[in-house]
Amino acid sequence: MRAVQVVGYHQNLELTELPVPEPAGPFDVIVKIGGAGVCRTDLHILEGQWAEKSGVALPYTIGHENAGWVHAVGSAVTNVAVGDKVIVHPLVTCGLCRACRAGDDVHCTNSAFPGIDTDGGYAEYLRTSARSVVRIDDSLEPADVAALADAGLTAYHAAAKAARRLRPGDRCVVIGAGGLGHIGIQVLKAITAAEILVVDRNPDALKLALEIGADHGVVAGGDQVTEVLDLTGGDGAEVVIDFVGEGGATRDGIAMLKRAGDYHVVGYGENIDVPTIDVISTEINFIGNLVGSYTDLVELMVLAARGDVRLHTAKYPLADFQKAIDDLDAGRIRGRAILTP
Amino acid sequence: MRAVQVVGYHQNLELTELPVPEPAGPFDVIVKIGGAGVCRTDLHILEGQWAEKSGVALPYTIGHENAGWVHAVGSAVTNVAVGDKVIVHPLVTCGLCRACRAGDDVHCTNSAFPGIDTDGGYAEYLRTSARSVVRIDDSLEPADVAALADAGLTAYHAAAKAARRLRPGDRCVVIGAGGLGHIGIQVLKAITAAEILVVDRNPDALKLALEIGADHGVVAGGDQVTEVLDLTGGDGAEVVIDFVGEGGATRDGIAMLKRAGDYHVVGYGENIDVPTIDVISTEINFIGNLVGSYTDLVELMVLAARGDVRLHTAKYPLADFQKAIDDLDAGRIRGRAILTP
Amino acid sequence: MRAVQVVGYHQNLELTELPVPEPAGPFDVIVKIGGAGVCRTDLHILEGQWAEKSGVALPYTIGHENAGWVHAVGSAVTNVAVGDKVIVHPLVTCGLCRACRAGDDVHCTNSAFPGIDTDGGYAEYLRTSARSVVRIDDSLEPADVAALADAGLTAYHAAAKAARRLRPGDRCVVIGAGGLGHIGIQVLKAITAAEILVVDRNPDALKLALEIGADHGVVAGGDQVTEVLDLTGGDGAEVVIDFVGEGGATRDGIAMLKRAGDYHVVGYGENIDVPTIDVISTEINFIGNLVGSYTDLVELMVLAARGDVRLHTAKYPLADFQKAIDDLDAGRIRGRAILTP
Amino acid sequence: MRAVQVVGYHQNLELTELPVPEPAGPFDVIVKIGGAGVCRTDLHILEGQWAEKSGVALPYTIGHENAGWVHAVGSAVTNVAVGDKVIVHPLVTCGLCRACRAGDDVHCTNSAFPGIDTDGGYAEYLRTSARSVVRIDDSLEPADVAALADAGLTAYHAAAKAARRLRPGDRCVVIGAGGLGHIGIQVLKAITAAEILVVDRNPDALKLALEIGADHGVVAGGDQVTEVLDLTGGDGAEVVIDFVGEGGATRDGIAMLKRAGDYHVVGYGENIDVPTIDVISTEINFIGNLVGSYTDLVELMVLAARGDVRLHTAKYPLADFQKAIDDLDAGRIRGRAILTP
Repeated sequence: MRAVQVVGYHQNLELTELPVPEPAGPFDVIVKIGGAGVCRTDLHILEGQWAEKSGVALPYTIGHENAGWVHAVGSAVTNVAVGDKVIVHPLVTCGLCRACRAGDDVHCTNSAFPGIDTDGGYAEYLRTSARSVVRIDDSLEPADVAALADAGLTAYHAAAKAARRLRPGDRCVVIGAGGLGHIGIQVLKAITAAEILVVDRNPDALKLALEIGADHGVVAGGDQVTEVLDLTGGDGAEVVIDFVGEGGATRDGIAMLKRAGDYHVVGYGENIDVPTIDVISTEINFIGNLVGSYTDLVELMVLAARGDVRLHTAKYPLADFQKAIDDLDAGRIRGRAILTP
Repeated sequence: MRAVQVVGYHQNLELTELPVPEPAGPFDVIVKIGGAGVCRTDLHILEGQWAEKSGVALPYTIGHENAGWVHAVGSAVTNVAVGDKVIVHPLVTCGLCRACRAGDDVHCTNSAFPGIDTDGGYAEYLRTSARSVVRIDDSLEPADVAALADAGLTAYHAAAKAARRLRPGDRCVVIGAGGLGHIGIQVLKAITAAEILVVDRNPDALKLALEIGADHGVVAGGDQVTEVLDLTGGDGAEVVIDFVGEGGATRDGIAMLKRAGDYHVVGYGENIDVPTIDVISTEINFIGNLVGSYTDLVELMVLAARGDVRLHTAKYPLADFQKAIDDLDAGRIRGRAILTP
Repeated sequence: MRAVQVVGYHQNLELTELPVPEPAGPFDVIVKIGGAGVCRTDLHILEGQWAEKSGVALPYTIGHENAGWVHAVGSAVTNVAVGDKVIVHPLVTCGLCRACRAGDDVHCTNSAFPGIDTDGGYAEYLRTSARSVVRIDDSLEPADVAALADAGLTAYHAAAKAARRLRPGDRCVVIGAGGLGHIGIQVLKAITAAEILVVDRNPDALKLALEIGADHGVVAGGDQVTEVLDLTGGDGAEVVIDFVGEGGATRDGIAMLKRAGDYHVVGYGENIDVPTIDVISTEINFIGNLVGSYTDLVELMVLAARGDVRLHTAKYPLADFQKAIDDLDAGRIRGRAILTP
Repeated sequence: MRAVQVVGYHQNLELTELPVPEPAGPFDVIVKIGGAGVCRTDLHILEGQWAEKSGVALPYTIGHENAGWVHAVGSAVTNVAVGDKVIVHPLVTCGLCRACRAGDDVHCTNSAFPGIDTDGGYAEYLRTSARSVVRIDDSLEPADVAALADAGLTAYHAAAKAARRLRPGDRCVVIGAGGLGHIGIQVLKAITAAEILVVDRNPDALKLALEIGADHGVVAGGDQVTEVLDLTGGDGAEVVIDFVGEGGATRDGIAMLKRAGDYHVVGYGENIDVPTIDVISTEINFIGNLVGSYTDLVELMVLAARGDVRLHTAKYPLADFQKAIDDLDAGRIRGRAILTP
C-alpha cells in the first residue's frame, strides 16, 4: 500500500510502498482509510517538536485523525465487522487500567497513539484496536468527519464538560473561533441554552461564529475584556473556554470570568500566571482539557449525524500530501485539509 | 459595653465603651459574645493591608470569628430565639441575589463582613443577621468553637468539596498542617476513606497530623515531592489541598498531583504559574476555595458536636486583647487564641 | 379591588369587592395582576379535593399562576422596585430553613401557597413575597407567561433535572404532550441533544409535539410500548418523563425504560406498582418531581425570553371567570386560559 | 480437579472430577480457588428458581463468590500474573459495549455470570476474565474476602451511591442488619459522617450493628416507623437503604423517608406500591441497586485492607459442601459460609 512517512525531522514527508498491515493481536482492527486529517500537530512533528516526547523510530507513517472502513479484525473483535464505516479514536488504550475501567480511557496508563508514536493514517490502511473504532451513521462519509477524530473531539470534550454547569441565563465565553472553537460553539449550541460570546481577532471567524450559533462576536482588538464585561452586566461569564492559550489569552480570559466561574484550558502556549489570592477571593477554577474519551467520540458522531456539528473540509488525494501540508502551513485552508487515498 | 477597636493603622487596638447594639432591621440578631477568635487577618488589618479593600471608617470594632448567645432579635426573625447558643457565619448576606438563592451565599452580591468592613466581635455584643446564626449543640461552648467560624469553615469547605471525588484508594495530599490544615485533616478523616498524606516543615505539626488521622507525614525539607511520588507509586495524588500557597508550595504541590487530579487552592501568597501545555496534557484542575457557606457551617458544627473535629484554644479575657495579639504575632499560641468577654 | 373567591365547595366562584392588599411584613410585595392562569387544580379546589389538605378558611381568593407588575413593597425589599414586571413563584418561602438555605426552597418547612391556602391571583392585586417575584424580560407580557408560573415551572423542573444525564444519542420518552408535556419538550429541545419520543393518545398533540422539537410521535393506542422499543433498538429509553401518571401510564412507561434508566414521575393519579426484583435487576430509578424552585423559574423565564419556550393562551377578562372555568372544564381551551383584570 | 455441580433441580449437589480449565480466549484467566462463598442464591438455584432465567445446561459447577490465586492467563492478559492473589468480580464483561466503555460494566450487554449461567467456583479452579480479577492486598486472604465478591459488593455499591448525597447531620436508615446490611453499615461509617439508624427484627443483629458503627438500633417490632420519626425530629431520614425488600419493609421504609429523600432498593421480594401523588408531593426518589462494578470491587478491597470492612466467616472444606448448604438453610451460620478446596 501507499503510505506517507516521516523520514527525518526538518525534511519533507515521503510517499513509499509498504505491506498492508494485518491484525497482530486479538483486538486489532485494520481500517481502510477514507480520510486522514492534516493537523497543525503534523507540522510540529516535522519540526521535531515531538521527537523526544514520542520516542518514535523513523521512518514511520504520520496521521492521527482517521476514518474509513473496517478491512480486517483480530480474533476477539466483536463490536465491528468488516465493511463497517468507522471513525478512529486517536488513542489505542488497554481497557484494563483503572482509568480505562472508569470510562476515562484518555488517561490509560498503557496507551499508544498512531500517527504520533506508531504508524498512523496518511496511508491506505491503518492498524488500530477494537477499542478505538466508532461506527458512524450511514449519512456520514469518512473523509467528511475524519478531522473530528482529534481536534473536533477535543473541542467536544471541553464544551460538553463545561455544559454540565451551564444553565439558561449563564454566559459562556469562547476564546478563539478557529478549528476547535468552531466545533465548540456548535456543541454548546446543541446541548445548552447558555449565551455564547465569542472572542477572536478575525472578523470573518466571528461572522461564521454568529452564523453557527454564537450570540455575540467580540473582536479581540484590545477592548475585548471591557466589551465582555459590558455584555455580562459587569459580572463576567460563568464559563470561559480558551481555545487559544497564548498571546495574552489567559490574562484576558481570567479578567472575563465571573466569581465562582470555570476557566477551561484547551489551547496552549503561554503560562497561566495568576495570584493565589485572586483564585481564592473570587473562588474561580481552572479546568484542564485533553482530547475526549471514546464515549465522547460516540456522542460527537451523534451530533454530526444530526447535522448539529459540521466541519468545512478541503480534500486532497493522498499523493498530494505535500500540497496539503504547504497549504496548511501557509494558512490557505478554510476548515480542515483531508487526505483521501 | 466594652469593645476593642481599630483606632488607626500601625497603632495598637484600644478598649472602649460603646452602647449595646440593637436590632435595626427586621432580620437583625444581636449576639452576646461567648468567644471571639484572634486571627492572623486581624494582624493584617492593623498593618493596613485591608484598609483600601474594606473601605471601613475608623474607629470600628474588630473580630470576625464569633460565637455566643442570642441576646435580641429583629421583628422578622424566626429561626433563633433569645438565649440560643450560636456560632456566627462571618458574612451577612442578602438572601435575594442569585448566589444566595442557589445556596451559594458566599458569593452574595450584597454582603457585609462584621469585623472587616463593619463592627465585629471583640466586644460584649455583636450585631449580625438571622441568616448568619447557626444554633450549636448543647455539648459545645461558644468559646471553644468560635475559631471554627472562619478559619475552620474555610478548611471544611475545601475538604468537603475535595471529598466529593475521593474514593477509597485515592490519595489526598494536605500541604500545611497548621490551623486550617489541622481541621482539614479531621474533616477528610470523618467523611472519606482516602489515604491522607500531610506535608509540613514542622515535625510537631506532622506528629499531631498523624494523631488526628493522617496516614503519612512528609517533612517539607526539600525531598517532599520525591517522597510523595514514592508513597503514591510514582503517580502522585488524586487531590492536593494546599493550605499554604506560598514559599514554593504551589510548584511542589503541582508536582505531587496525578493526571486528572484536582489542586485545591486555599492558602495564598504566591502565584500559580504553570504552563498551559502541562495543564492540558495531564488534564489537571485548579479549584479555588473561599470560606464555606452557611450550610457548610451547619455541617461543620455537626462534626464538632460528634467530636470528629476538635480545635485547641488558648483563652484570654477580653481586656487582655493586647497579650493575645502579641502572643499570636510572636508564634506563642498553639491552636487558636480566643477572647472571652 | 375586584377579586374572585371560593365561597363554598361545589358552588360557583363569586366576584366580590375587597380592599387592595398592603405590605404587612418587611418582605411583602404587592403585585398588580396582569394575568392569572386558570388551572385544572382550580377545578379540583371547587370540588373540595383540597379542602382538608389546605385547611383554608372560606371565602378566599383563588388563583396560583400569576404575573404582573410590582405595586408596593415592604420595608426590607431590595430585589424589585415598584413598576417592575414580574412573574410570581407559587410558593412564599421562609428563606431560613435548611431547604431554603440550600437553594431547594420548594421544600421550605414554613411556606404558604397563595391561591391554595391563602388569597391568590384571580384579582386585581396579590400579596406575595420578595422571595417569590422574578423580574421578566421587557419582551415578555405578564398575561402571556402567567401559566408558566406553576404548570410550566413543574415541566421545566422535571425536564432540566432529567437533562443532567442525557447525552447525545440518549433517548427521552415524554408521556403526555398536553400542557406540561408541551413545555417539557421545548425545554429538552433547548438544553439537550437527546432524541425525544413523545407518547400521547391525541394525534393533534403529537403533531404539535413534532413541530416544537420532538423526533418521534407515538400514538398511545395499545402498541406504544412495542413502538418505543422498536424505535430504541429494543433497549428502551435512558429517560422517561411521565406527565400523565394514570390510566396505565406508569406500567407502560416502565416497560419503555432501559436498564439503569430514570423514570421521572410528574403526572399523578395511579400507583407505581413494581416488583423490587425488577427495580434491582435492571437498576432503574424513580425520580419524583414537584414544582420548580425560584432559580428554576428564573431559568425558565430566560428560555421564554429567548423564544425557546412558548405557550398558547386564551385570554378572558376577569369578570368572565365563569366562562373560563366552564371552557376549561369542557375541554374547549387550546393551551391555557388566562384571566386579565 | 474436584468440582461441586448442580446435577438436577430439587436434588443435592454432587462432587465430581473435571479437567482443570485452560484459557480459551486471549483474556481468559484461570483462578485457583482459595475460597468460594455459599450464598442464599445457591439455595434458590437448587430450587430451580433461576433455571429459566439463566438457561444454564446441567450439570454445571455452582459458586459465584470467589477468590484465590491466578493459575494461568490468556495471551493478551497484562493486568495480572500467575501467582497473584485475587478476588473475582462475579460478571465476565465484554469491555466494548457502551456500558463497559462508560465504566458501568454491570450493565454490559454481553456478559456471563460464572456460577449462575456457566461454571463457577465450588471447585479447585475457575475460568474467568482479565476484566474480572482484582488483585488484593498482601494482608488479605482469599477465603476471608470471597464473600465480598457479590453480597459485599452489592452492599458497597448501594452504600457508596447513597453516600454521595449524605452530608454531616443527614440521617441514613439501614433496613436489615444481616449479611449485606452489616457490610453497608461499615461502608457508610468509613465514608460518611451521616447518622446511621439500623432497623432489624433481631436484637443480636442490632447489637452487632451498634458495635460496627451504627448510631441507633431500632427493633422492627411494630413501632419502628414511629421510632425512626422520633429519632429524626419527625422529618424522617434523608436516605433509606433497604436490604430487606419484603415483609412490609418498603411500606415502612417509605414512611421513614424525609421529603426529597432517596430510597435505595437492594433487597427484593415484595412490590414497591406507592401512589404517584405521594412521590411527587414529597419529591422522593427510588434508586435501584444491582451488584457493584469492577471499580466498586477495587474500592471495597481497599476498605477491607484498611480494616474498615470485616466479615465473619465459617469455613468448610470443599468436600463438606452439603454441610455448608444445610447449615445455611437451617440458619446455623453467623456471617458467611466459605468452601475452601
